[in-house]
Amino acid sequence: MPERPLPTEKEVRALIRDRRNWGRWGKDDQIGALNLITPARRAAAARLVRTGRSVSLSRPFPKEPGPNNALPAQHYMRTLPRGTGGFAADYYGIFYHGIASTHLDALCHTWDDEAMWNGRDPKKEITFDGATFGSVEHWAEGIITRGVLLDVPRHRGVPSVTLERPVHGWELEDIVRARGITLEPGDAVCVYSGREAWQAANGDRPYGRPFGPGPMERPGLHVSCLEFLRDHDVSVLVWDMLDHLPVGYDVPWAVHAALFAYGVALVDNALLEPLSRAAAEEQRDDFMLVVAPLVVVGGTGSPANPLAVF
Amino acid sequence: MPERPLPTEKEVRALIRDRRNWGRWGKDDQIGALNLITPARRAAAARLVRTGRSVSLSRPFPKEPGPNNALPAQHYMRTLPRGTGGFAADYYGIFYHGIASTHLDALCHTWDDEAMWNGRDPKKEITFDGATFGSVEHWAEGIITRGVLLDVPRHRGVPSVTLERPVHGWELEDIVRARGITLEPGDAVCVYSGREAWQAANGDRPYGRPFGPGPMERPGLHVSCLEFLRDHDVSVLVWDMLDHLPVGYDVPWAVHAALFAYGVALVDNALLEPLSRAAAEEQRDDFMLVVAPLVVVGGTGSPANPLAVF
Amino acid sequence: MPERPLPTEKEVRALIRDRRNWGRWGKDDQIGALNLITPARRAAAARLVRTGRSVSLSRPFPKEPGPNNALPAQHYMRTLPRGTGGFAADYYGIFYHGIASTHLDALCHTWDDEAMWNGRDPKKEITFDGATFGSVEHWAEGIITRGVLLDVPRHRGVPSVTLERPVHGWELEDIVRARGITLEPGDAVCVYSGREAWQAANGDRPYGRPFGPGPMERPGLHVSCLEFLRDHDVSVLVWDMLDHLPVGYDVPWAVHAALFAYGVALVDNALLEPLSRAAAEEQRDDFMLVVAPLVVVGGTGSPANPLAVF
Amino acid sequence: MPERPLPTEKEVRALIRDRRNWGRWGKDDQIGALNLITPARRAAAARLVRTGRSVSLSRPFPKEPGPNNALPAQHYMRTLPRGTGGFAADYYGIFYHGIASTHLDALCHTWDDEAMWNGRDPKKEITFDGATFGSVEHWAEGIITRGVLLDVPRHRGVPSVTLERPVHGWELEDIVRARGITLEPGDAVCVYSGREAWQAANGDRPYGRPFGPGPMERPGLHVSCLEFLRDHDVSVLVWDMLDHLPVGYDVPWAVHAALFAYGVALVDNALLEPLSRAAAEEQRDDFMLVVAPLVVVGGTGSPANPLAVF
Repeated sequence: MPERPLPTEKEVRALIRDRRNWGRWGKDDQIGALNLITPARRAAAARLVRTGRSVSLSRPFPKEPGPNNALPAQHYMRTLPRGTGGFAADYYGIFYHGIASTHLDALCHTWDDEAMWNGRDPKKEITFDGATFGSVEHWAEGIITRGVLLDVPRHRGVPSVTLERPVHGWELEDIVRARGITLEPGDAVCVYSGREAWQAANGDRPYGRPFGPGPMERPGLHVSCLEFLRDHDVSVLVWDMLDHLPVGYDVPWAVHAALFAYGVALVDNALLEPLSRAAAEEQRDDFMLVVAPLVVVGGTGSPANPLAVF
Repeated sequence: MPERPLPTEKEVRALIRDRRNWGRWGKDDQIGALNLITPARRAAAARLVRTGRSVSLSRPFPKEPGPNNALPAQHYMRTLPRGTGGFAADYYGIFYHGIASTHLDALCHTWDDEAMWNGRDPKKEITFDGATFGSVEHWAEGIITRGVLLDVPRHRGVPSVTLERPVHGWELEDIVRARGITLEPGDAVCVYSGREAWQAANGDRPYGRPFGPGPMERPGLHVSCLEFLRDHDVSVLVWDMLDHLPVGYDVPWAVHAALFAYGVALVDNALLEPLSRAAAEEQRDDFMLVVAPLVVVGGTGSPANPLAVF
Repeated sequence: MPERPLPTEKEVRALIRDRRNWGRWGKDDQIGALNLITPARRAAAARLVRTGRSVSLSRPFPKEPGPNNALPAQHYMRTLPRGTGGFAADYYGIFYHGIASTHLDALCHTWDDEAMWNGRDPKKEITFDGATFGSVEHWAEGIITRGVLLDVPRHRGVPSVTLERPVHGWELEDIVRARGITLEPGDAVCVYSGREAWQAANGDRPYGRPFGPGPMERPGLHVSCLEFLRDHDVSVLVWDMLDHLPVGYDVPWAVHAALFAYGVALVDNALLEPLSRAAAEEQRDDFMLVVAPLVVVGGTGSPANPLAVF
Repeated sequence: MPERPLPTEKEVRALIRDRRNWGRWGKDDQIGALNLITPARRAAAARLVRTGRSVSLSRPFPKEPGPNNALPAQHYMRTLPRGTGGFAADYYGIFYHGIASTHLDALCHTWDDEAMWNGRDPKKEITFDGATFGSVEHWAEGIITRGVLLDVPRHRGVPSVTLERPVHGWELEDIVRARGITLEPGDAVCVYSGREAWQAANGDRPYGRPFGPGPMERPGLHVSCLEFLRDHDVSVLVWDMLDHLPVGYDVPWAVHAALFAYGVALVDNALLEPLSRAAAEEQRDDFMLVVAPLVVVGGTGSPANPLAVF
C-alpha cells in the first residue's frame, strides 16, 4: 500500500473552511450532523440487530492515576443505615475530556480562530455556568444509528497504528472499498487503531499528554480524515486513537475540527478492541450503535458507555 | 376501583425472603435478573422499533440546589487555548443516589439485616474502594430489552399518584390486563406515577428527603408491587416516583428490596411524562429500552440517560 | 438607645465611592487594608497574648445538607494498606462562599457596576483559571493582628441581633466608647451578633439563601457600618452575621463593599459565641488574631480556622 | 562528620513499641503530644515574636498535574451577578495526603499492625463518615507553639539531602548542639532538607510516588529520627522531605510512626526554603509557629498554611 501525497496547507484549510456545514440545518441549529440520523435511520439501525450480542465500547471509568491519566476520576463511597438494613452510595467526579475517559464531545467543545459550530463566538457562548450553544443536552434523545467498523490494524496486518504512520482519509476509503461497505449519511464510523496493542508495545510511555506543557505527539488519525468524514456525511466518529499529533499544519485542530466545522459528534477514547473481535466473530462490519449522553444543561459533552449491538 | 386488602407483615416478609432469586443463576452471579435479557430478547427488543422515535427518560443533571436536591451535582467549566483556537471542558461531580438524579441502581446498592444480593455480606463487600460484589461494571454491556409503560395516572384518570393512594401490585396487574399487555420474562417495566404533576400541585414541598433526619414520607409504589415484579420475572423497574414511604411494615426497604432479593435493576427518578405522551401518540405500550451505565468498577450504580425507542 | 437617622442613598454611595482606598497603596496593590498590618503591628499583636488561651472562630466544615447549607461540603474517606499497617486519607471539597462555611474573602470576591478593588475590571481579571488580581495568594503570609471583639448582644442586653434591628455604624461606635476601646489602624474587628441564639430562636428558618432565587432577607450589619470600618482604618472584619438584607439602597453590596472599596478583608460566618464567652471570662476585649488562608493561586478566598489567642 | 551505626531492627521496633505515649494523657486522649503545648507554652511562643516578620510555610495549593502530583487539587470558578455588580466564587477540592500539598496529619492518619494512636482499632474507628478517634477537630484550637528550625543543608554545607544520605536522629542532635539550641517539651521542630534544591537537581524525577504501585524510594528522614522526637518531647514535626524510603526495616511506617506511637503532629510537605532564608537573615533559630487546621469533624488532617513569625 503506497503512501499518497499529503494535502497542502491550503487544502487542509479548505477542508475546514470551505466544506463546513454551517447553516446547513439552519443558522441556529445545535444538533449538527446528528440531523442526518432521522427516525427512519434509527429504525433502520435497529433492524441491523440480529444475534442480539451487545458490546460495550467504554473503557473503565479512569480512577487510577498514571501517565495516561493526569486528572484521575473520583469514586468515593458511603454506606448508610436504613432501618435494620442499609445501603451503599457513591460519588463520581470526572473532568472527562482528555485521553483517559470514553466520552462524547458536544459541538461546543472546540473552535478555531474563527468560530464555534455554526459561526458562534466562544467568548459569548462559553460561560462559567456552561455553554449556551451546542451543548450536550441538545442530544438528549441519544445517538441511535448504524455503526460501521473500520479496522485499521486488520487492514494493515499489524497490531496497531504507529506514530510514524497515521491513518489517512484515503486509507479509510481503501478499507471501505476492500470490505465492500456502503456508507450512508448519518452513519457512525468506528475507526479502530489498536490503542491497547500500541500501549502494550510502548510500556510506560503515555499515549498523549492533553494537559501538560511541551510539544504533543501521539499516533492517530491524520487531518486528511476530515475529507472522508465530510464526503460520506458521517454523523459520528467513534475512535480509540485520536488526532495524530503534531498536526503538521498551522491549524489548531486536526480531526477535532469536525466538531465545529461539520457538526460531527466525536466519541473519544472508545474501547474498540472488543468490537474488532466481535465483528470478526459475527462476520459483520455494521451494527446498531447507541450512545446515551448524560443530560447536562450547558455541558460540553458526557462520559458515556457506547453500545454496539449485532 | 375498590381498594384491596393490604398484605400482612408475614406476607411482605415472605415476598422478600421466600421468593428471592438467590442462587437462581449461580451462587456467584452478579448479573441478577438481567440474566433474563438474553441476546435473543435483545434482538426481539430491537424488532419493536418501528417509527424510530426516541425519547429520553432522563431528568436534567441536577445542578440546582433546592428542597428536592440536598446534594446538588457539580458542573464546572474551563476553557483552554489550543493554538489559534481553543476548547471548553468541564467537570461533572455527582452523588447520584437519592431523589434528584435519573440513575441506575446496581445490585450492591441495598441490603436488609440478612444480606445483599445472593446472600453476600455488605460488611465484606462494601469497601472504601468500591463494592466488590454486584457492582455496576457487571452490567457494562448495557440493558437493551423490551420496555413496557404502565401509566398509572391514565389508568386512574387523575394527574398523579398521591401520598394517600399508593400504587399497589394489584393495580399494576389491572393495568396490564386493561391494556392487553402480555409481559415476558426480562421485560423492563416503566411505572409512570405523574411526578411532575404531583410536584406542580405541591409547590415547594419536596418529593422526599433522602438524606436528612426525621420521618420520611412520599407518594409512590407500595411494597406490594414486589409480588408483581417477581411474578412476571421483570428484569428492570423504571420509575419516576419511588417506594411509597413510610413503608408501613417493619422491613428496611419496600420496592427497593427487589435489588437484593430478586436481582432486579432499578432506574430511579426517570422522567416518564414525555414517555407517557409519546406512548399515547404512538398508540403503543412497548418499545425498545436502552440503559447504558458508566463502567465504574466497584460502582453502586450510575447516572444514566435511559432511551425509549418506538 | 434611640435609633438614629438612616444615611441617605447619596451618603451610602459616597461612602462606597468617595472614601474608597483605590491607589492608597499604589495602583497595582493587591494587599489592600492588610498593608496596615505592618510587622510592628504583628509584633504588638503577639504582645497581647498573656494567658495563652486559644479560641477557634471556625464553624465545623459544613458537611450536612440543610436549609442553611444548599451546597454541602464534601468529605470522603479512603483507607489503604501500607505493609502490615495502613492509613486513612480523605478528600475535602467545598464551594466555601455563602453562609455555611467560615471563610476569608479575598479582594477579588465582589465588585459593583464600576469595578473591583483598585479599579480593576472583573471581566478581565476573573478567568476560568482563577482571579488574576486581588486573589488570596497575595495574603499567603497570613493575617496576624490585634483582634477586638464588639459584642452587640451584650451591649444590647439581648440574645441576638434581629431582622428588625440591624447593627449600625453608630452602634459599633457606641460599643467602642462604652468599652473604652481605642481602635488602631490595622485592627481586626470581630462583630458578634449572636447568630447561634438567633438560629435557636428561629428553628428551621434559614439564616439566609445565598444561591437561590427570590428576595433575600437576613439579620446582620447595616451598610452604615462601612463608615465605621473606614473611619477606623479597620483591616479585617470578622463577623458571624453578615450584611443585613435587603440592603435598602440601590447598591449591589452593603458591608461586602468593604472588599472592593476599602480593601478590607472579610471573615464570613465566623463562630463568635465562644469568643464572646472567652472574652468575658478573660475580662478583655482584645487578643491576637491569626487567620492563615490556604495558598490558592487565583483563589477568591479560603475556608479558614481563625484563632483568637488571649 | 562520620556516619554512625544504624539502629538494629529490634531497636527500631523498641522505639515504636516500648517508648510509645499511649495512656500518657489518658487512655481516651485524642490530643496526643499537643497536650505538651499548654497555654503557658503558647504565651511563651508569642513572646518570641520580635520583628513581626511572618513567613508562610505552605506550598501553593497543588492544582497542576505532574509526576509529583498524581491527584491534582481542584479549583473551579464561578461568577454570579448581584444587582448591578457581581461576585466570583470558587470550589476547592483536594485529596491532600501524599507529597504535593502542605498539610497536617491528624493522629488517626496512620497505624501499624497493632493499632492506631492510644491503642485504638482502625477497623472500628475509620468509617465511611470519617474517623471517630484522633481526628483533626480535636485540634480545632490550633497549634501555637515555639518553632525551631533544624537546617540540614546548612549544617552539611550542601544544597539538599540526598537519597544516599538520609537525615538521622544523631544528625538532628548534632545540629541542636552546634546551634546551641535548647529544645523544650512541646516545641515544633522544622526539619529543612532542601527539597526545592533536590528537585531542581533531579529534573522530571518525582520526589515520591505515594499512590502508585512498585517500590517507593525517596530522600528524607531516617526512622532513627523517631528517637530524637521522643527524647525531646517534640509535639510537632514540620518537614519538607518526608520519611526516607525504602524504610529499610520491616515496619510499615518510619517517621510517620510518630503519629500513632507518640501522638506527634506532622506537617507534611512544608515549604521550608523561605524559612531557612528568613532565619538566616533574622539570625534566629526559633519563632512562633501557628498551624490552624480546618475544623473537619472526622477528618484525618487538613491542608494548611503554617506561619512562622519572628
